[in-house]
Amino acid sequence: MKNLLNTISFPLDVRKLQPEQLPELARELRAFIIDIVATKEGHLGASLGVVELTIALHYLFNTPRDLLVWDVGHQAYGHKILTGRKDVFHTNRQLNGIAGFPNRSESEYDAFGVGHSSTSISATLGMAIASALKGEIKKQHIAVIGDASIASGMAFEALNHAGVSDANLLIILNDNAIGIDPSVGALKEYLTKVKTDKRLAVQNNIIKALNFDYSGPIDGHNFDELIAELTRLKSVKGPKFLHIITTKGKGLPQAEKDQVTYHAPGKFDKISGDVLPKAVSEFTKYQDVFGKTIVELAKQNDKIVGITPAMLTGSSLKLMLQEFPNRTFDVGIAEQHAVTLSAGMATQGLVPFCNVYSTFLQRAYDQIIHDVALQNLPVIFCLDRSGLVGQDGATHHGVFDIAYLRCIPNLIVFAPRNEIELRNILFTAQTGLKQPIAIRYPRGYGEIENWQLPFEEIEIGKGVCLKEGGNVAILSIGTIANSVSKALLKLDNSTESSHYDMRFIKPLDVKLLHTIFKNHKTILTVEDGTIKGGFGSGILEFASENNYSNTIKLLGVPDTFIEHGTVEELQEICGLDVQSIQEEIEGLLE
Amino acid sequence: MKNLLNTISFPLDVRKLQPEQLPELARELRAFIIDIVATKEGHLGASLGVVELTIALHYLFNTPRDLLVWDVGHQAYGHKILTGRKDVFHTNRQLNGIAGFPNRSESEYDAFGVGHSSTSISATLGMAIASALKGEIKKQHIAVIGDASIASGMAFEALNHAGVSDANLLIILNDNAIGIDPSVGALKEYLTKVKTDKRLAVQNNIIKALNFDYSGPIDGHNFDELIAELTRLKSVKGPKFLHIITTKGKGLPQAEKDQVTYHAPGKFDKISGDVLPKAVSEFTKYQDVFGKTIVELAKQNDKIVGITPAMLTGSSLKLMLQEFPNRTFDVGIAEQHAVTLSAGMATQGLVPFCNVYSTFLQRAYDQIIHDVALQNLPVIFCLDRSGLVGQDGATHHGVFDIAYLRCIPNLIVFAPRNEIELRNILFTAQTGLKQPIAIRYPRGYGEIENWQLPFEEIEIGKGVCLKEGGNVAILSIGTIANSVSKALLKLDNSTESSHYDMRFIKPLDVKLLHTIFKNHKTILTVEDGTIKGGFGSGILEFASENNYSNTIKLLGVPDTFIEHGTVEELQEICGLDVQSIQEEIEGLLE
Repeated sequence: MKNLLNTISFPLDVRKLQPEQLPELARELRAFIIDIVATKEGHLGASLGVVELTIALHYLFNTPRDLLVWDVGHQAYGHKILTGRKDVFHTNRQLNGIAGFPNRSESEYDAFGVGHSSTSISATLGMAIASALKGEIKKQHIAVIGDASIASGMAFEALNHAGVSDANLLIILNDNAIGIDPSVGALKEYLTKVKTDKRLAVQNNIIKALNFDYSGPIDGHNFDELIAELTRLKSVKGPKFLHIITTKGKGLPQAEKDQVTYHAPGKFDKISGDVLPKAVSEFTKYQDVFGKTIVELAKQNDKIVGITPAMLTGSSLKLMLQEFPNRTFDVGIAEQHAVTLSAGMATQGLVPFCNVYSTFLQRAYDQIIHDVALQNLPVIFCLDRSGLVGQDGATHHGVFDIAYLRCIPNLIVFAPRNEIELRNILFTAQTGLKQPIAIRYPRGYGEIENWQLPFEEIEIGKGVCLKEGGNVAILSIGTIANSVSKALLKLDNSTESSHYDMRFIKPLDVKLLHTIFKNHKTILTVEDGTIKGGFGSGILEFASENNYSNTIKLLGVPDTFIEHGTVEELQEICGLDVQSIQEEIEGLLE
Repeated sequence: MKNLLNTISFPLDVRKLQPEQLPELARELRAFIIDIVATKEGHLGASLGVVELTIALHYLFNTPRDLLVWDVGHQAYGHKILTGRKDVFHTNRQLNGIAGFPNRSESEYDAFGVGHSSTSISATLGMAIASALKGEIKKQHIAVIGDASIASGMAFEALNHAGVSDANLLIILNDNAIGIDPSVGALKEYLTKVKTDKRLAVQNNIIKALNFDYSGPIDGHNFDELIAELTRLKSVKGPKFLHIITTKGKGLPQAEKDQVTYHAPGKFDKISGDVLPKAVSEFTKYQDVFGKTIVELAKQNDKIVGITPAMLTGSSLKLMLQEFPNRTFDVGIAEQHAVTLSAGMATQGLVPFCNVYSTFLQRAYDQIIHDVALQNLPVIFCLDRSGLVGQDGATHHGVFDIAYLRCIPNLIVFAPRNEIELRNILFTAQTGLKQPIAIRYPRGYGEIENWQLPFEEIEIGKGVCLKEGGNVAILSIGTIANSVSKALLKLDNSTESSHYDMRFIKPLDVKLLHTIFKNHKTILTVEDGTIKGGFGSGILEFASENNYSNTIKLLGVPDTFIEHGTVEELQEICGLDVQSIQEEIEGLLE
């Protein structure tokens, strides 16, 4: 059998094929994705689900002139492979390799950079309006969005606008009934009904009510249906909406069956499909420290509720869902709603733990300020994946949170140094705090085997001294304390440095700071967030306010977007690895 | 005729009335609102539109035990008057008076503080879930939301969740087809169709498709219909949705006719309804500087487009709409969409001016980072109503923007000192910038009569020296420069101070800063944003990075939520009035 994929570098090559060759190309493309992701890791299930759609779109539309936007971008591996990146696909998500998501700087075929969900309709509508204003009336503008993403508020805002525009916009709903975890919500239930009762699609249609030319649902794995319908839609004017049904993980039986695991399965056997055993660690992920601890706490405190916007598995809130299904709420990709829902719960005396990835909490910034902090409601924000997150790259780093939270009155901001501190602040937060608190912790493993010690309350606003020394005081926040400790161990003259884990970014431990500033000539702050406006900036403000003239130096994430790579590689780029910290301290000690 | 309103202090008093007395109470309540707002100013139209609904809700429901949340809160004057605040209603929006919006700290009848739109469903759902968990099964939870607010993404997220919950939640859609400006979007068109064709309400219903018990539309000014339907709904379990039709400004003919003006008409004649002539100013509002300038620029540059999320009138983008209807986009209350739509437009070479109030841009924080700055797209953000906004109070101050924008890579942040600077930066921004820019300017009047001078390009990242002096350098950003200038004029020893308008919060004018730090012993920064993480904080970072040991003091908004009052009163509270600045400089000169 001829290998078709070998002949294809760009969509022009796809367009040379006969329609009857497309299923074979789909088979090969699927095999190629499985082959590489099996060893290189990455997001598997979503891309397997849209292989036919990807081929059909590049076959029928004149990309890159026609503009194609993939929502989120987990599903864009096939797109990347067909658009000039087949030979570098094995570098996916690696430092200096291609990005895990579509990226404008990587390829002209990536019409819009993505990573966070539900942006595609807005972006594509903007493009379509631009084309209309420029008189480019034949240009096509296509957004491919999943059923989990379309339920997010931002997507609705865009639909609401697109429906009254005459923009030449095609929205393709890739309905596989799952995001990372199974989709939730009333819209999802509605879509399920549409699938089983096609009369609903005709008669009582939300999308039609919003003025779209709706078609479907059709089988997204059937080239005949896809080609016919997409060909028809090319000549329909105005906003169009095609509903296709696909199976996440299509083509790899285990991935179809266990769609949550195979969203990003890590390494797996490409023949059997079995996920390969991960290296056994004696340590625990911070996510599981959160998940296990909240279950423990929820057993003791029946006011506790857990809220997540579509990150049940990733955040390990799933552990709470299993034990307390009535008190655990996956609200879908709806960060804004998650935060204000939590605020409403807090007004009635519940103790809401609202777990949102740091990067996604950016979506609910106004709600933190306006609905929580302004009313001083004791919502407990758990900011998972704070700091550098690694391979997901620039769209996903949680490096802005310290800066964007530090300016909000009433809000406590805490970063645990280790698993025990995370455990104890979770305990402390539910003992009757009278104000909101944000707890930021990283993705991945801690370094303590026995962290499940009896709970101890943490005094709000109190830092701790980890090491007393001479002229230089190092003030760290969060788990980067461990890198500081390692750097200090490597120093010959480590007795000349003190190390404080300030723990609270806000309120600062003013009493401790006075002691530190009086006893040290030089201060070095270390954090895994932006230098601009970050924790170190807060220390500068303290010094200014209190007339200290100590030398103060700041280490943190520089003022640039940090790309993808391992956390260790990215720390090195930012000067936040052990070696760089060590050198910085040596410089100050000289 | 007996005056009913005189007998009413709290809802308990309303509940003593006979149903047939309610229309008379409505008449008196309307007259009371008109009477006070005519002289004290405030939001008029929205409250007049819900007089009957307000009375009916407090009549039938057991407030404050039953929980009632008003979305936005422009419409809550009647609610305030009937819930213990009749006698202080004349202090509305004044310093130390009652707030213009519902406020939990003001009354137990204000179940949730509001101000920004579209939060009510999330908050009320949170309350309803809490009641269910606590076994309070008879408690009622009511959200009243307008048709402009319900089209915002956050409201959709909440509907999507509520529809699959069994929470005892009643959502009342107060459909008057207008927000501040007339409502827009596909949902609004759909609602209009529902009103004219009741079969649509029955057969093809978006809200029903989302699993709600939908009823209506009914006449929201008809007590018989309201009382009957609300009574029925009290005993319906689960999520319910009542669609009522009202007229904004109801009862004051001019307000019904010119709903935009009478949203917040300023002083008016309470008999004739005529708006009273405002004090004539020789100066121009910053809003009109923006509006007139963008029209001028759009005439010269056909790539320019204007985007606003529902603030056409407030931002004066209306001026552009009048001249260039095809290039001006009111997307409704959809800040997230507005920003990413602009990003999409920018990818195609358009020059989008996205005008959003500073406080509302908090709603699109993630989109600024993820969709604009990360891709370095040259979107021009015009942050109207930055700084202290006055009577709208804590929910509306634009004081966080400097801190939350300063940490974002690639973004230029500029604050004009006066109308000419605003005009020139708007000009500069559309000359082909290769990165995004945020331009923050205040609400209200400037101080220059002839600001419409020929355009001059502003060099990016260049500050200016306004006055050269001795040991103390004052570095200001934005229009507060004028207060600094006035303070300096009042000083006896003003020759000892320099004054620099740094103009760019980002990038800082590093060259100028080096000169300043070398030539002055002491630096004072002045800004009308939060001290934490603000412009001054950036100057501290510069000093730290460059090993300067100058004394640096920061003036700005302290770390607390600032309430309502005139801008002048609030500046005094923050220590940002001329007198306070003068005293601060005097202290540093000693």
